[in-house]
Amino acid sequence: MMHVHIALVHYPIRNRHGETVSTAVTNLDIHDLARTATSYGCAGYTLVTPLLQQREMVRRIADHWVGESGKERNPIRARAFECLTVESDLAATKTSIAKRHGGVPVWTLATGASYRENDPNTPLHSWNAARSALADNDGAALIVFGTGWGLIESLVTDTCDGRLPAIDAMAGRDGYNHLPVRAAVAIALDRLLGARPHVLP
Amino acid sequence: MMHVHIALVHYPIRNRHGETVSTAVTNLDIHDLARTATSYGCAGYTLVTPLLQQREMVRRIADHWVGESGKERNPIRARAFECLTVESDLAATKTSIAKRHGGVPVWTLATGASYRENDPNTPLHSWNAARSALADNDGAALIVFGTGWGLIESLVTDTCDGRLPAIDAMAGRDGYNHLPVRAAVAIALDRLLGARPHVLP
Repeated sequence: MMHVHIALVHYPIRNRHGETVSTAVTNLDIHDLARTATSYGCAGYTLVTPLLQQREMVRRIADHWVGESGKERNPIRARAFECLTVESDLAATKTSIAKRHGGVPVWTLATGASYRENDPNTPLHSWNAARSALADNDGAALIVFGTGWGLIESLVTDTCDGRLPAIDAMAGRDGYNHLPVRAAVAIALDRLLGARPHVLP
Repeated sequence: MMHVHIALVHYPIRNRHGETVSTAVTNLDIHDLARTATSYGCAGYTLVTPLLQQREMVRRIADHWVGESGKERNPIRARAFECLTVESDLAATKTSIAKRHGGVPVWTLATGASYRENDPNTPLHSWNAARSALADNDGAALIVFGTGWGLIESLVTDTCDGRLPAIDAMAGRDGYNHLPVRAAVAIALDRLLGARPHVLP
């Protein structure tokens, strides 16, 4: 079983006009993803933003909840926040994860709502294939989620080893496919790590 | 294929001390669940609260976004909010859904993080069995989610036909199982309605 990490990237991100922007860290993304990642046994959750003030804000929030008074008030939240770290960019995130697990390479998979066709440089893995790879190998993996309108393509090709397919809730039966990132992370982790014998008896 | 609805119940709810309380409607539950439900093709999403002021607040928010100026500003949000309704209790929710689909009975399933054993009065359906039932039958179904520490037991036995198993992210491998309701709804809909051929090729 690989050590699975998730990252939520706030830069470089596309906005609705296709421009490269930095998105703001939201309080709920901190809480929701920390709980979901911890529930699925992830080894870590990294918030990625180049904005120092936002990284400091996240650290202050996390320090509060994992500290004595926060832990006493809400031990469930404290436990979730233990997996939370902040980094300035995705490359630094990979370096930290590699160090933490003894210098292993970090198998890095990008997620995106438009990934459907195979790309020779960053191959598309089916959910099942990725699930098997995570279960059958040692080492570390990083699942990368974007905010806004998704990860900038050059970040994916420069930093990621592969991609996961668009979640495609209804496989195109309708066409509306605008999951909140909080939902996308939950669904992705359930598909990759959820206890199948219990889920699909 | 059944017409699938979801409901998010704010009363009667357990708090951490086991007492019956009414929880507050949160803005993000309105937005996230509307997007997730629409992405999975749900016929409706009902926010259930006996508090008139909170129902009016939700209606005002929804009216804004489905109105002309909201639709122009954010058509994706407008589309999601078209499925949103509010009701004072779960029985009224079932009545409204039945009426909307020509008076059919509404197959109502409760969700909860502690449902593991079968209960003769409200039988536990596996995720796969429920998924098949939704796909193979006509009529309407309602998947009920609680807030706070979950649905009051008497509400389930009085109003629901069955239960879905706890999501059990890791099937007890660790023990931390505190998914935000926004994650639980996303995972449940993916397990029940997600496009499997694409998901698990």
